[in-house]
Amino acid sequence: MTGTLYGIGVGPGDPELITLKAARLIAACPIVAYPAPVGGTSFARQIADNHISSSAEEIVIPVPMQPDPAPAQAAYDHAAPVIAGHLEAGRDVAVLCEGDPFFYGSFIYLHDRLAADFPCEVVPGVSSLMACSAAMNTPLARRNDILTVLPATLDEPELTQRLQNGGAAAIIKLGRHLPKVRRILDQLGLTKRAGYIERASLDEGTALPLAEAPATAPYFSMILVQAQ
Amino acid sequence: MTGTLYGIGVGPGDPELITLKAARLIAACPIVAYPAPVGGTSFARQIADNHISSSAEEIVIPVPMQPDPAPAQAAYDHAAPVIAGHLEAGRDVAVLCEGDPFFYGSFIYLHDRLAADFPCEVVPGVSSLMACSAAMNTPLARRNDILTVLPATLDEPELTQRLQNGGAAAIIKLGRHLPKVRRILDQLGLTKRAGYIERASLDEGTALPLAEAPATAPYFSMILVQAQ
Repeated sequence: MTGTLYGIGVGPGDPELITLKAARLIAACPIVAYPAPVGGTSFARQIADNHISSSAEEIVIPVPMQPDPAPAQAAYDHAAPVIAGHLEAGRDVAVLCEGDPFFYGSFIYLHDRLAADFPCEVVPGVSSLMACSAAMNTPLARRNDILTVLPATLDEPELTQRLQNGGAAAIIKLGRHLPKVRRILDQLGLTKRAGYIERASLDEGTALPLAEAPATAPYFSMILVQAQ
Repeated sequence: MTGTLYGIGVGPGDPELITLKAARLIAACPIVAYPAPVGGTSFARQIADNHISSSAEEIVIPVPMQPDPAPAQAAYDHAAPVIAGHLEAGRDVAVLCEGDPFFYGSFIYLHDRLAADFPCEVVPGVSSLMACSAAMNTPLARRNDILTVLPATLDEPELTQRLQNGGAAAIIKLGRHLPKVRRILDQLGLTKRAGYIERASLDEGTALPLAEAPATAPYFSMILVQAQ
């Protein structure tokens, strides 16, 4: 009997926004894996800390944080056979994922490498999309609204065109792209309908009208644009 | 001291996909409100059943299930002052919401009526969007993918144009619009990249390639289209 690979969403940051199912499975798995920035601590592990068994074996996947995806892919190339070894030996593996595993989650890279060969189950989590909307205390989408999720990494013409189409929008992965996104929203007259959020659901989080947002943004920050 | 209005996401259906925070607040609130179809039972209440205090007063909001929004709005017009009365008397009110309260949730109609006058906090929940992706065992969006959420109620030219733009898509609120949506996806050559999901996260749920989907769909069903 091979083990099962669980991709477990641990939610946006508040440890209380983990699901009962995630908490149960994390506690039950003998192997717990998670990404961590090279030289840093894992946010996903920090969120799930209360639930990891003291007898669990932990696998850290050190992920270089840089625009070039190749070194991160190499880290998953290295981690996948280690995880596969545990699954082949019949041990279940919980992979911890910030937010939701399949919504822009790094778990996808392990799923790509392992799901064809092993039983795989994803436990959906509370996404940052919903946590940011709650932090702004403003609905994300209602009735017949269209909602578009746009990575800020897209080029200026593509972002402009998509935002021009109307509806609600979430612009994710801001980081160094914040000035570009602000410029586009200003040009389209959308700034007054936009909110800026970082570290949603955490005490130290920020949720402001975009006009009052700081000049620089971390990678995990988001702009929400309300539908008209 | 007025009470706080909590909009609480209880997740997509599996009672284990409720968050620790939702479970705690539902148990603590003396007043628990939820929508239910006229003459039917409330799915949100069923999901949260284990957590509702036996001493809680329950407020059922009977919502007519029909395309005309006016009768549903009248139901919220009627419920809002009842809830306001409890808040004015200092009692916290938990409003239970399937999925996430601000993601196409009916909680938005109470928020519209009450958030200006009372403290309001939304507890984000696991959305059906993420639960459907998990049910298909297929990533929703990765890296620089654009994801568009489209209500199936939109007209055919608008749906066609949005789906033509590329990226990943989630088409929600299928119901009687399923034949129209299938026709559009066929014409665009997208059927082979589409999955059909109903009752995600429940034992009786369905997750199939769209080509194998049934001819009729409930309102709470979804089509996910993978990005190329």
